[in-house]
Amino acid sequence: MSKRSPIRIAINGYGNLGRAVEKAVHNSPDMELVAIFTRRDPATLATQHAPAVAIDEAKNYVDLVDVCVLCGGSATDLGTQTPDFTKLFHTVDSFDTHAKIPAHFAAVDAVARENSHVAVISSGWDPGLFSLNRLIGESILPRGETYTFWGRGVSQGHSDAIRRIDGVVGAVQYTVPVEEAKQRVLAGEAPELSTREKHRRECFVVVEENADQESIRDQIVNMENYFSDYDTTVTFISAEELSNNHAGMPHGGSVIRTGQTSEGVTQVYSFDLALDSNPEFTGAVLTATARAVSRMVAAGQTGAYTVFDIPPAYYSPVSAEELRAQLL
Amino acid sequence: MSKRSPIRIAINGYGNLGRAVEKAVHNSPDMELVAIFTRRDPATLATQHAPAVAIDEAKNYVDLVDVCVLCGGSATDLGTQTPDFTKLFHTVDSFDTHAKIPAHFAAVDAVARENSHVAVISSGWDPGLFSLNRLIGESILPRGETYTFWGRGVSQGHSDAIRRIDGVVGAVQYTVPVEEAKQRVLAGEAPELSTREKHRRECFVVVEENADQESIRDQIVNMENYFSDYDTTVTFISAEELSNNHAGMPHGGSVIRTGQTSEGVTQVYSFDLALDSNPEFTGAVLTATARAVSRMVAAGQTGAYTVFDIPPAYYSPVSAEELRAQLL
Repeated sequence: MSKRSPIRIAINGYGNLGRAVEKAVHNSPDMELVAIFTRRDPATLATQHAPAVAIDEAKNYVDLVDVCVLCGGSATDLGTQTPDFTKLFHTVDSFDTHAKIPAHFAAVDAVARENSHVAVISSGWDPGLFSLNRLIGESILPRGETYTFWGRGVSQGHSDAIRRIDGVVGAVQYTVPVEEAKQRVLAGEAPELSTREKHRRECFVVVEENADQESIRDQIVNMENYFSDYDTTVTFISAEELSNNHAGMPHGGSVIRTGQTSEGVTQVYSFDLALDSNPEFTGAVLTATARAVSRMVAAGQTGAYTVFDIPPAYYSPVSAEELRAQLL
Repeated sequence: MSKRSPIRIAINGYGNLGRAVEKAVHNSPDMELVAIFTRRDPATLATQHAPAVAIDEAKNYVDLVDVCVLCGGSATDLGTQTPDFTKLFHTVDSFDTHAKIPAHFAAVDAVARENSHVAVISSGWDPGLFSLNRLIGESILPRGETYTFWGRGVSQGHSDAIRRIDGVVGAVQYTVPVEEAKQRVLAGEAPELSTREKHRRECFVVVEENADQESIRDQIVNMENYFSDYDTTVTFISAEELSNNHAGMPHGGSVIRTGQTSEGVTQVYSFDLALDSNPEFTGAVLTATARAVSRMVAAGQTGAYTVFDIPPAYYSPVSAEELRAQLL
């Protein structure tokens, strides 16, 4: 590995994802963490590996940072933060509102080009690694079907929807792939699967004393857009059990492409993640992507990009020669 | 998808792999097959979708072909064919003699640069897609272990080794991953596994009438470098059963990266192929790679490359805009 200067990283946002990137950068000997930007009072943040800095000060870090990893949420933050920060820095984000990705890409691309910066949007695992596997699977097997199964994992959106019901004190919802459906897909059957046949939903719910459990169960399983199209189980548990057994954020899933290369010759391509911690894995992907951004900058690129545009060697700290000798 | 001219493909070599590429190009509406070069008498080849052409005529196709897919074997063909053909064409090969990859890369790179051509070496699934997943898995999870399991699939080298034993008329050898070991890896245990613990070998053997089966079995299971380090089963079958039940060339396997993103937080990344036909899948990968070569040429690149260097969008016939809208 040729000696390079460390890649200087900043983080914007210090929630679960920001803390995960902090850990991943700390685990990467070729990187150094310079600052963690925050909208909160920096004095209130217990950061581990770099000082917390008020977000308004970010502009003073332009010459000190190579890549800024944007750790806000898609719903309210990244739509403005990614263009704003791409004025100052090369950036990477995990924008995941699928319907808005083309508009987000266009907005970020314009800013990136004006400022001669590189911005990789929508990194992580879905979008991100799952997208990459959809693309490669479909490119190799043009005559076939693609399936995505998610879980077993916590869906924050569904957990939040339960928490908004009167009488509910706490809740965690797991999205669970239907194993029988997944096995049919892996066997190359190329089945047509309804929403209900692909995933089921498990809810663990804490309610107020004397709450009407049957009414709450009905409200959950019949909730449109969230639960009514699925087989949903509701288990009432104590607040203690919720915090002891359901505090983690596991997730994962599979992308499966099955296709025929000639009549009756079936090929099955599958990619699978089983994650103890969704934010820590997403943070690890964003950190490897930040390394790729620094390589794209070195190669003279500017503009917005996605995982589809990144030569895979750019994710690695290892030299091209060593990669060919060791991993091919 | 913007309208592009078809990518004009030639194939060199018309064995199992050449026939597979012929099918894959035929399945790709953005490509057209121009010629199939052969060392044999072209009149003896029953090609399906393009004329067979004597290999010495290849030089007359320089202006008619965009990418030549090299379908010879690594042991005796590609070491000379890839440099020779890269003088004439942009090329892709499936060179898979791991120890010789750095030297092959250097030789092909020199020719490619001299002739302003692009050559992608060592495409396919291993090397190829498996290499890509080792690279990405290790880049995202720097603290972890990588495992490769092969099979269940036919190993030509091991089948050939059995066929060389006196009294053996025919043989097929399957490499089989040890399911218990694979499950331990997928559970994130990060076990140390010996050769014997990872794979076993199943041999289906046809012998001459009156052959000494016990002696043949002993010679197989004790054969050094091939079988002595494995648990090997030998089943004697009829020639009819061999041709009815063991004529296919299934293969596949898994690349698994497990790692910790923080103390006790285990993440499992796995990629799996289950292939009815090893050559047809390899041919499909080479064909998608030929598309990528044409994109690299259009981007002004020259030299030798591997799967590590290819932006994934280059494998796809779909435009960047559509990929972002549909697959991210």
